[in-house]
Amino acid sequence: MSVERTLHHFPLDPTSRQVRLALGEKRLAFTDVQVRYWERPRELTKLNPSGMIPVLVEREEGKAPLVLCEGRAILGHLEDAHPDPALMADDPVERAEARRLLTWLDRKFEFEASGYILHEKIEKRLLSLGPPDLGNLRLGRDGLKRHLFVFDELLQGREWLAGKRLSLADFAAAAHLSVIDYFGDMPWREFPALKTWYMKLKSRPAFRPLLTDRWPGLAPAGHYDDLDF
Amino acid sequence: MSVERTLHHFPLDPTSRQVRLALGEKRLAFTDVQVRYWERPRELTKLNPSGMIPVLVEREEGKAPLVLCEGRAILGHLEDAHPDPALMADDPVERAEARRLLTWLDRKFEFEASGYILHEKIEKRLLSLGPPDLGNLRLGRDGLKRHLFVFDELLQGREWLAGKRLSLADFAAAAHLSVIDYFGDMPWREFPALKTWYMKLKSRPAFRPLLTDRWPGLAPAGHYDDLDF
Repeated sequence: MSVERTLHHFPLDPTSRQVRLALGEKRLAFTDVQVRYWERPRELTKLNPSGMIPVLVEREEGKAPLVLCEGRAILGHLEDAHPDPALMADDPVERAEARRLLTWLDRKFEFEASGYILHEKIEKRLLSLGPPDLGNLRLGRDGLKRHLFVFDELLQGREWLAGKRLSLADFAAAAHLSVIDYFGDMPWREFPALKTWYMKLKSRPAFRPLLTDRWPGLAPAGHYDDLDF
Repeated sequence: MSVERTLHHFPLDPTSRQVRLALGEKRLAFTDVQVRYWERPRELTKLNPSGMIPVLVEREEGKAPLVLCEGRAILGHLEDAHPDPALMADDPVERAEARRLLTWLDRKFEFEASGYILHEKIEKRLLSLGPPDLGNLRLGRDGLKRHLFVFDELLQGREWLAGKRLSLADFAAAAHLSVIDYFGDMPWREFPALKTWYMKLKSRPAFRPLLTDRWPGLAPAGHYDDLDF
């Protein structure tokens, strides 16, 4: 059991956050390497030819390192190798629902909501591309509300997003929303069921490291690390 | 074991094809419903609020129908419920590699290559958006070659894309490439290792139904269903 883990990630990347939450829930220690992935550092492209983050490297004596590239490979492996606590329910209906929501978040939510907001608020800053475009921000915020409405409606009838069990879908959604919350763009008051759900997640030990994330030049909203927001 | 399956799909959608290949490999019978998803039919949005395909519905006497929305939920469930034959190797290294490639195909390959080509060749036709834009097609074809170079290089040192075992990564890649091949846009001659790999896949029984696909107004290239292309 002497596996040494190194996570190459960016603190404000939703997928990196999802992996950090999963590692935290499973109580797996790791060394934290923050990567300026937009500069395509060779250290990263050597590990992952796509140049994307996160990348988790597991080193065990006498074995070749296991290099896990991006969310699907990392989360799949963690669930295979460390099934307790499980982040996917046993029930096929809840598994199907969690996977549906994971696709929703990774594609639809990113294309229609968070992609606009994070491009304007993070990428433009990091790449010195000038001030945020207000039209794009408005598109993102309008898209965001449509999606939050969907999540809130689900949570009015369920304990967790995919059903009775806390699952990867909750951590994925919380990871996405937490980055938007960092920038103060989450209209929590309009979505009370979603807010209650987020409060439960935010107070879990696995969430704590995310609340201390800061990136130079990108200041968080005042309530960002407040558990009673 | 009296599960009745209905697959709602579009024949020229790469993810739908990936699911059909997986069902074929696992010898699971299904009823085939072709969906004009771009018209957002209510039959589809009732099953999957995102309006995306494919959707697989499993009906079993005495149980609520299991609705599996999109590739990740369908393929995950098929692997959970019908692990033989497995489409993911047992070896953690090959699993990690297959998952890395699945993300590569779903995101990078689609963004940089197939997305351009299929938008110009399929979506514009189906949505009556006018003739293909040659600049976009060129971008797609240039991107395609860069990606094929990567796949070909992998296959020069391996039997299958993720390693020694045929896996979901092979079916996903073959599904993507087969749609591009339908339109005669695959430069096979430049990528001999990839061509050999594709010939092996193309001659599998699970592949046969894909070779008979035709869509009104979208004619396939002459060699499309030729096993010796």
